[in-house]
Amino acid sequence: MDDRQYLSEAVTLAQESVENGGGPFGSLIVRDGEIIGRGCNCVTGDNDPTAHAEIVAIRAACQTIEHFSLKGSTIYASCEPCPMCLAAAYWARVDRIVYAASAEQIAAAGFDDVVIEQEMALPVAQRSIPMERITLESVEKLFSMWDQKEDKIHY
Amino acid sequence: MDDRQYLSEAVTLAQESVENGGGPFGSLIVRDGEIIGRGCNCVTGDNDPTAHAEIVAIRAACQTIEHFSLKGSTIYASCEPCPMCLAAAYWARVDRIVYAASAEQIAAAGFDDVVIEQEMALPVAQRSIPMERITLESVEKLFSMWDQKEDKIHY
Repeated sequence: MDDRQYLSEAVTLAQESVENGGGPFGSLIVRDGEIIGRGCNCVTGDNDPTAHAEIVAIRAACQTIEHFSLKGSTIYASCEPCPMCLAAAYWARVDRIVYAASAEQIAAAGFDDVVIEQEMALPVAQRSIPMERITLESVEKLFSMWDQKEDKIHY
Repeated sequence: MDDRQYLSEAVTLAQESVENGGGPFGSLIVRDGEIIGRGCNCVTGDNDPTAHAEIVAIRAACQTIEHFSLKGSTIYASCEPCPMCLAAAYWARVDRIVYAASAEQIAAAGFDDVVIEQEMALPVAQRSIPMERITLESVEKLFSMWDQKEDKIHY
């Protein structure tokens, strides 16, 4: 299968998701020519605002390979990943992202991907969700614990 | 309990996480004076690169209230949320974010939060993960299905 075929399958997952009451998004993860994870948008059905197709597919793929790194993988997404899913792709260490619908198409369908991207690009003081930092002495101890932990696993 | 006390509890969760082999991050969600979700970083233990403390706490809180919106809630995080968790906070519709350690402290501890934030601010062509769009006719059908679905749930 080539990029176009994998991506078509991601769109098929998105169509099935709509039929099943979910959002119109599907995704799959491919490594070495093998589909190792599939996901569709389950936000409303699962009461999970983080259950975007890409996040679900990344979690599924990591369970398949029993590792937290998807290095060597490509993520196929029916739509351009939102900032949450894009950052998740970085944390998952995927090699490539291939998508079909644009962020503008998703915005036209009523989703806040572009709104959230614009919010995150603003200076903190101008964003709609206030962020406040409170310094705590216990944080120093926390990082000292982490620094001294000899068997810590880097990700 | 006030902001400082809730935040201290998030740091305590982070310390417990380190003791249990996880990353040094903890988070909790509070609504109407009640802690409705807790989370710690379980990336390496659960083989889940999306299992940051805030994501885990958001998912737990949504299970508690059986809804995908955390409107009216505050998220407390031991560290400044990474782009994935910040976007997740937007999708979860929290009212406020309160945190202790800064992004710079997290970077000094060896985590890629700042690196990923910088990557996402770059033009797509300059980012380390290539993104490729392939247009598919099936996408038009997908959004048409979505548009015509009368019982769709907005989030």
